[in-house]
Amino acid sequence: MISEARVSALRARMAAEQVPALAVTDPANVTYLTGFDGVFDEEPAHIALVTERATTLYTDNRYAEASSAASEGTGWEVRAAWPDLVSAACADLARDCIGRLALEDTASRRYFDSVESAFEGEVVAARGWVESLRAVKESAEVERIVHAQALTDAAFEHVLGTIRPGLTEREVALELEFHMRRHGSDGVAFPPIVASGPNSALPHARVTDRVIGHGELLKMDFGARVEGYCADMTRTVVVGKASERQREIYEAVRSANAAGIGAVRGGAKGREIDAAARSVLSDAGLGELFTHGLGHGVGLQVHELPNAGPRSEDVVSTGSVITIEPGVYVAGFGGVRIEDLVVVEEAGARVLTRSPKDLIEI
Amino acid sequence: MISEARVSALRARMAAEQVPALAVTDPANVTYLTGFDGVFDEEPAHIALVTERATTLYTDNRYAEASSAASEGTGWEVRAAWPDLVSAACADLARDCIGRLALEDTASRRYFDSVESAFEGEVVAARGWVESLRAVKESAEVERIVHAQALTDAAFEHVLGTIRPGLTEREVALELEFHMRRHGSDGVAFPPIVASGPNSALPHARVTDRVIGHGELLKMDFGARVEGYCADMTRTVVVGKASERQREIYEAVRSANAAGIGAVRGGAKGREIDAAARSVLSDAGLGELFTHGLGHGVGLQVHELPNAGPRSEDVVSTGSVITIEPGVYVAGFGGVRIEDLVVVEEAGARVLTRSPKDLIEI
Repeated sequence: MISEARVSALRARMAAEQVPALAVTDPANVTYLTGFDGVFDEEPAHIALVTERATTLYTDNRYAEASSAASEGTGWEVRAAWPDLVSAACADLARDCIGRLALEDTASRRYFDSVESAFEGEVVAARGWVESLRAVKESAEVERIVHAQALTDAAFEHVLGTIRPGLTEREVALELEFHMRRHGSDGVAFPPIVASGPNSALPHARVTDRVIGHGELLKMDFGARVEGYCADMTRTVVVGKASERQREIYEAVRSANAAGIGAVRGGAKGREIDAAARSVLSDAGLGELFTHGLGHGVGLQVHELPNAGPRSEDVVSTGSVITIEPGVYVAGFGGVRIEDLVVVEEAGARVLTRSPKDLIEI
Repeated sequence: MISEARVSALRARMAAEQVPALAVTDPANVTYLTGFDGVFDEEPAHIALVTERATTLYTDNRYAEASSAASEGTGWEVRAAWPDLVSAACADLARDCIGRLALEDTASRRYFDSVESAFEGEVVAARGWVESLRAVKESAEVERIVHAQALTDAAFEHVLGTIRPGLTEREVALELEFHMRRHGSDGVAFPPIVASGPNSALPHARVTDRVIGHGELLKMDFGARVEGYCADMTRTVVVGKASERQREIYEAVRSANAAGIGAVRGGAKGREIDAAARSVLSDAGLGELFTHGLGHGVGLQVHELPNAGPRSEDVVSTGSVITIEPGVYVAGFGGVRIEDLVVVEEAGARVLTRSPKDLIEI
């Protein structure tokens, strides 16, 4: 599915920035450009080097065969080098008399230092060049996200039939994850969050062995992954009959979710979408308890561009895929978050999440 | 289990380097120092700031409660700040008239740029200060690794009873992972590698849906995780009766594994341990097919210090935990790797891996 348009767009940016060579090291960016996604080491095990004329994937010996297979027909030349990819790439640049190299600024300072020692010319930092391309999805990318979200919805439907007081958070999280993976999810987009009772008041709680009690809020945030592409959804249920307070908070968050979705359209600002949802919670006197941004882009990474938080400068373009996930967190009591995944279309949001949003009492 | 000795050792290093403040952002290092391990975002969601007098954990609002809970009794003061931890930390440094700040060089160039904008004094890069402390384990850390390795061995024993021709690599990988996690592994140390037939010739193959055939090599590299600490082991079996060539390669790798273990002692150089195993394979005419380093440290990360590869400058100290994992990879034919986890003791290696190393024919 790698499109030549990606490299062409990158070369246009490089020309505009007067950069004759760009070294891409971020694993998701390497995958986006070359098709290869076998990276899980801490150190960059690949350099995808784009120049005006060539596209070369420098790869650790351990990945040489897999890289060649994955990038077949993509126009990338694979060069195995070990242990020093940087020297190999810099030697090729010197041979081609290229004296200016941009390196992605997500690379570590240590990596920058090593490139600056090995490269004889000028090294500059590139910020978000590939990420900004990734923010707008091609239809084949959206298809993968749709597939991942369908696996995610199916796991939610399945787990609803298993939840009961007495289970632990970890048991529910494993059930969600195993269901997604047995049905074709390639790993998960992120470790599922299953947070019960007071734990649900932590926006990003880690799963614990806490036993889920009767009458408690249970917040589940999880996502499948298909061919590298992530899904992301949150639902909050009550394990028993909801109290008035639980229902009040739930309905406020649900209205905020609807308002956020209603504000989505191609060309809207991320912070405007956030504001539409946030104002609903502020009007309900819950604004201070919504302690994070409304949403973020989703693709090869579960958090990517564009950002839809209160301080975002991002424009949300037609073709982006973003989350809409307002939440209210009351320390000691619990929290509610309702998160949908939407495709940004010119006139509004196309919601990919199929799971119900009526308050579920189990 | 956080020991004050860790911060004291760090302060000694800071004094030697004339650095009055160190900002620790690497997630494993933050966990090591503060006890908090709720980090999974791409951007640093924490700064553990060590000065001569104070230890302060700056944390994203989303993690504030969990950070406080995890660091209770550790002497760390938790400060919630959102969205800009860097400004909060730099303001405190200015208040305390601290004009020189070291930042871990594993942080991105982008992060360095943001700190350099926010901090009025000098910013310098620190390389491996916390990592070098982590290279030598305290006994409570070794206990966790022993526990993780026991879960890993148990999963191997379990999976041996399920492997048969006709299963896919993915099915075997899920069986390994689910067994570890159902029995207490907190996630996994890394996504299990299960590589069959020709795929086993890729040192770091990704799991595929390839159906395992009769008579093939099957390489499994996997590890559990307990309270943050990783295990790591590899076994290679033959699914059927081994051919002469398979057995020859297997026995050579097994001898190399034994030679590597035999070369371990406190104070040995990483590259000497590598050389002991590598020479066995070279003598067998297989040296060129051993295309990676012999081993690496294991702890809060599955790859950490010390390194035991051919170009390593590291000394392997008493109290380190390292892998010994020679491999031979024959393109198109298959590969064999045998990996044990060992604690480095003064006089030799204490092997934590309990799984058999005789060639298993299933």
